[in-house]
Amino acid sequence: MKPLYLAAIVALALPLPALAAGVIDNVNGIAIDPNGKVVRFAALMIDDDGKVEKLLPGRYQEPKYERPKKPKKGQPWPEPPKGLAFKLDAGGKTLIPGLIDAHGHVMGYGLSLITLDLSETRSLAEAQAEIRAYAQANAGRKWIIGTGWNQEQWGLGRFPTAAELDAAVGDIPVWLERIDGHAGWANSAAIRAAGITPATRAPMGGRIEMAGGKPSGVFVDKAMDLIQKVTPPPAPKDRDIALEKAQRALLAVGITGIADMGTSIEDWQAFRRSADRGALRVRIMSYAYGIDNMVLIAGPEPTPWLYDDHLRMGGVKLLLDGALGSRGAWLRADYADAPGQRGLPMIPDTQLRNFMSRAAMDNFQVAVHAIGDAANHELLNAIEELNDTYKGDRRWRIEHAQIVMPSDLPRFGPLGAIASMQPVHEASDWRMATARLGEARLNGAYAWKAMLDNKVPLAFGSDVPVESPNPFAGIAVAMSREDGKGEPAGGWMPEQRVGFDAALDGFTRQAAYAGFADKKFGSLVPGQRADFLLIDRDISTARPADIRQTQVLETWIGGKRVYIKGQ
Amino acid sequence: MKPLYLAAIVALALPLPALAAGVIDNVNGIAIDPNGKVVRFAALMIDDDGKVEKLLPGRYQEPKYERPKKPKKGQPWPEPPKGLAFKLDAGGKTLIPGLIDAHGHVMGYGLSLITLDLSETRSLAEAQAEIRAYAQANAGRKWIIGTGWNQEQWGLGRFPTAAELDAAVGDIPVWLERIDGHAGWANSAAIRAAGITPATRAPMGGRIEMAGGKPSGVFVDKAMDLIQKVTPPPAPKDRDIALEKAQRALLAVGITGIADMGTSIEDWQAFRRSADRGALRVRIMSYAYGIDNMVLIAGPEPTPWLYDDHLRMGGVKLLLDGALGSRGAWLRADYADAPGQRGLPMIPDTQLRNFMSRAAMDNFQVAVHAIGDAANHELLNAIEELNDTYKGDRRWRIEHAQIVMPSDLPRFGPLGAIASMQPVHEASDWRMATARLGEARLNGAYAWKAMLDNKVPLAFGSDVPVESPNPFAGIAVAMSREDGKGEPAGGWMPEQRVGFDAALDGFTRQAAYAGFADKKFGSLVPGQRADFLLIDRDISTARPADIRQTQVLETWIGGKRVYIKGQ
Repeated sequence: MKPLYLAAIVALALPLPALAAGVIDNVNGIAIDPNGKVVRFAALMIDDDGKVEKLLPGRYQEPKYERPKKPKKGQPWPEPPKGLAFKLDAGGKTLIPGLIDAHGHVMGYGLSLITLDLSETRSLAEAQAEIRAYAQANAGRKWIIGTGWNQEQWGLGRFPTAAELDAAVGDIPVWLERIDGHAGWANSAAIRAAGITPATRAPMGGRIEMAGGKPSGVFVDKAMDLIQKVTPPPAPKDRDIALEKAQRALLAVGITGIADMGTSIEDWQAFRRSADRGALRVRIMSYAYGIDNMVLIAGPEPTPWLYDDHLRMGGVKLLLDGALGSRGAWLRADYADAPGQRGLPMIPDTQLRNFMSRAAMDNFQVAVHAIGDAANHELLNAIEELNDTYKGDRRWRIEHAQIVMPSDLPRFGPLGAIASMQPVHEASDWRMATARLGEARLNGAYAWKAMLDNKVPLAFGSDVPVESPNPFAGIAVAMSREDGKGEPAGGWMPEQRVGFDAALDGFTRQAAYAGFADKKFGSLVPGQRADFLLIDRDISTARPADIRQTQVLETWIGGKRVYIKGQ
Repeated sequence: MKPLYLAAIVALALPLPALAAGVIDNVNGIAIDPNGKVVRFAALMIDDDGKVEKLLPGRYQEPKYERPKKPKKGQPWPEPPKGLAFKLDAGGKTLIPGLIDAHGHVMGYGLSLITLDLSETRSLAEAQAEIRAYAQANAGRKWIIGTGWNQEQWGLGRFPTAAELDAAVGDIPVWLERIDGHAGWANSAAIRAAGITPATRAPMGGRIEMAGGKPSGVFVDKAMDLIQKVTPPPAPKDRDIALEKAQRALLAVGITGIADMGTSIEDWQAFRRSADRGALRVRIMSYAYGIDNMVLIAGPEPTPWLYDDHLRMGGVKLLLDGALGSRGAWLRADYADAPGQRGLPMIPDTQLRNFMSRAAMDNFQVAVHAIGDAANHELLNAIEELNDTYKGDRRWRIEHAQIVMPSDLPRFGPLGAIASMQPVHEASDWRMATARLGEARLNGAYAWKAMLDNKVPLAFGSDVPVESPNPFAGIAVAMSREDGKGEPAGGWMPEQRVGFDAALDGFTRQAAYAGFADKKFGSLVPGQRADFLLIDRDISTARPADIRQTQVLETWIGGKRVYIKGQ
C-alpha cells in the first residue's frame, strides 16, 4: 500500500500572544539574594507564568507607546506593547518571600485540627474535662483519638495513667498521642482492644511504661504501634477535610511551601486528590515515610515537580531515634534525670546504611531524624561512608540535629549535610533539655549559630503539629532564643542566636535548597515562582517580640492571591 | 490598619486567540451515531482542544477571505479567519473511531510482554524447552515468572506436574500462570519456597491439585495465592517498561481506550507516572482491584477525569467466580466433564452485597466478574436488591456474562445491567465450553445477539492478556463466531452472531458507555475527543475473515497522531 502523504500536513503557525503580566507596586520589598543577604525593592513584576520577572528598585512606570501612522513597508502592523493583566498598589506595605517550613507534617497537622487537642491544657484535671466533653460532643465514635498532651506542661512530674484516663472516658477506647508524637496514652478499653497484657513485651525501639507489674497506660516510641495497629485509620474524606484545613491555616501564617516529613501513601493520595481538583495551593516537598512508601509512591526515582511546582516526592524520611521529652533521643551518656537510660536507636546501624543506600541508589534524597548526640554522630558516620559510593549533589538532611557533640559540628559542612532545625523547639524545650542533659552537656544543643559558623546550610521549620506552624514565631526565636513570654530574658545560650538575614534565609532560600526546590521558589529571584506575602510590619527592623506578632495580610502563590486576611 | 486597595487591581483583558483547528480530509469516514448506527463522512474537523468539531459529508473547503481596505469606522482591524493548524489529506483511506476495549488488564498485558510467554507452545515438551531457554537467558533472576500455558492446547488432557517443571528448571522457583489466569503451575522449588506441604489446605475459593497425597504442582483460583504471596513483585521500573510496551501494542492494533479491570495501587501509580511525564496516550477507565484498592486509590468518590480525559478511576472490580477452563466458573449443575464439581463462588452472597454497597454508597461503579450461570443468576439477584437502595444511573457491569440461564437473559435490561463480553473468548472456548457444559446447556452461552434482542447494552472487549487485544479479531468473531482458522465454518451457534454495526458499536460507543465515558469519547460525535484510526480497508463492507486482517495505518488520540504504522 502507498504511504500517506505526510507532507500534506501543513503547519500554519499563528503567533500565540502571551497573557499579560502583573505588577505589585509600591511595596517595602524584602527579598533574599543568592548569598542569603537581604535585598530591597519597591515593585515586583510577575510574568505570564506566575513567575518573578523583575524586582524594581523604584515604582513601576507604564511603558510609553505611540501608535504609528502606518506599518513599516512590507511589514504587518506592529503589536502594541503587552498590557498588564493586573496591577496592585500595595500602599507601601511590606512584601517578603513566601515562607517555607523545612520540616512539618501536613496531614498530621490537618488531622490535629479536626481531632481532640490537649495542647492548651494546663493540668491533668483540665485535660480529663476536655476529653470527657469531646467524647460527649462526638457520641457514636468507635474510638476517641487525640493529641497534644504534655505532662511537663501539667506540672505532673510523671506520665499519666490508664486509670486517670478511664476516669474521663471508660466505655470506649481512647488513644492520645503526646505532643511530640513519641509517646501515647491509652485507657483500659484501648489496652484491652489491642490485646495487650502484663506479659506483652515492647518491640525493639519502644518501651511500655509499667506500674505494679502491668502496663500503666503510656507507650513510648515503637511501643505505640501496639495500640496504633488497632486504631481505626482516618477515612479518605476526613483526610481531604484535614488537608484543606491545614492549607488554610498554613496560608494564614504565610507558609507557601513545606517539606512533608514522612508522607504515607494515604497522605500522598490526599495531596493528589487536592491537586487534581485544583485545590492544592501550598507547595509540598514530600519525603516518604520509610522505604516502602517511597517505592510505592514515587517508584523508580523521585517524581517530577507536579502541578506547576506544587508537589514532588524527592526523598525518604527515616527515624533514627526518638525525642528528648520522652527520653527516646539516643544519647552518648545517660540522661541526667534518668540514670541508666540513654534512649536507643530505632534502626540498627547496618539497616540504617541499607535504607540510605536503597534511597540514594535511585537518586532519592535522604532525610534522617536525629535528635540525640549519639544519633547525630552515628548518622554523620553513615553519611561519611555513603559519600564514597553516592557522588554528586546529595543534600543529606539531618532533621532536628538538636544535640550534637561539639566535635561533630565541623563535620556537617564537608560531608554535605544540611541541618534542618526548628527554632521554636528550643523555646519549648530549653528547661526540659537542661534537665535531660545537665548544664555541662549543653554545648552543641540547638546550636544554630555554630552551624552557620561552620558553613552548614541551615534550614528552618516548625515540626508542625508538634509546634505551631507560625514562622514569625520561628524567626523571632531564631533571633532571640526567648520564648513567647520573653523567657529567659536575653535568650537561652544567647551566643547561638542568629541575625535577621539568617533567620529569614532559613525560612526561605535555605528551606527551598534543603528540598531541592531552590530553582523553583524560595527567594523571589527572577525566574522563580512568585510566592510572596504582604505583611503588617517591617520585620527587617522590628524587634523579635514584635516580629512574633506579625500578621499576614495577603498570601500569593504562583502570582495568584490565595489568602486575604479577614476573608 | 487600613485595608489594601483591592480596587487597584486593574484587569486589562487581552483577547486570547485560540489555537487553530485541523482537518483530516478526503476520508472514507465511518462513525457511530447516538443510536449505534453507522454514519458516513468525508472529512473530520478537529477543534482547538483536540475534540471533534464537525463531520463533513463532503471534502473540506477553505473559507474565503478578502482583506478589507480599512477597518470599519471606530473599529479595530478585523481579525483574519482562523487558519488551520494542520490539514491532512488521507487519500481516501478509511477512518473509524478509536476502538475501546471494555475489559482488559493493562499492566498484566504489559508484564506479559516482558515475561516468559508460553501461549504459542503446542506441547508440554515445547513448553519445557522454552522455560529452560528463558531461564538460561535470564540468569541471576531469583524467580522465573511466566504465563500463557494451556494444557488443552498441548493436547495433554490433564494438568502438568511439578516434576515436569522441575525437569525444565529445578534449581530456582518457577511459577507459571495458566493462560486464563485462573490456575498456576509451580515447580518443587516454588512449592518449597511457599512452605506448602501435603497438609496445606486450599483457602476458600481455591483448589490444590493433588497426586499421591501431595500437591501435584497446579493451584487453582484462590489457591494461587499460596504461591503468589512469596513471588517477588515487579519493580516499579519493570512496571513502567511494561506499561509503555502495553501502550505501544494497543495503539498498534487501534485501541485508544481501555477499561482496566482490576487496578492495584501499584498499577495506578504506574499509570500516573506515565501520565505525569506526558506519556499516557491510551485512555484508561480504571476499576480498582477490590474495595481496599478503591478506597486507597480514589478515596471518598470516583476520581475526576485526569490528564485531559486520559485516566479515571470510576469503580471497583469484584470477582464472583473463576473460569470455565479451570472449572472455577460457578455453575447451577455439575460440570458435564467433571461430575460432582460445580465450581464455587469466590465471595459469599452477603459479602458480595456488602462490597457492592460499599462501592455504590460513594457512587463508585460496580463491575463483577461472573462466568457461570449460577454466578450470573446470583449477581442479578444482588443487583435487583441493591437497586432498591442505590437509585440513579448506576450502570452495573457484568463482566464476561458467559453462561447465562435463558430465563435470566431478560433480567439484564430492566435491572440496568451492562453485558461486558469478549467475542474472542467464544472463538477460543467453544470446544471446551461444549465439553464443560454439554450440548443441552449451551442456550444462553456467549449469547450476544440475545443480549441485543433484550436491549441490553453490549460492550465488547478482549480480556487482554488472556486473549490478544486485537479488536479487529473481536469484530470478526462477533460477526461470524468463527475462529482464526474459520472454524467452525458458518459459526458456532450462528444465531448469536451480530451485525457490523453492533460489533463496531460494542467496541466504541457501548464500551465508552459502560465506562461512563460516553460524553468524553467513543463515537466521533462533535464535542468528543478526536480519537480515531486510519485503516487499510473498508471494514463496513469486508467479510469477517478480511476484517480480522485489518492493519492500522495511523492512530490519533485527542487530535494528535500517536502511532504510524512502520515507524
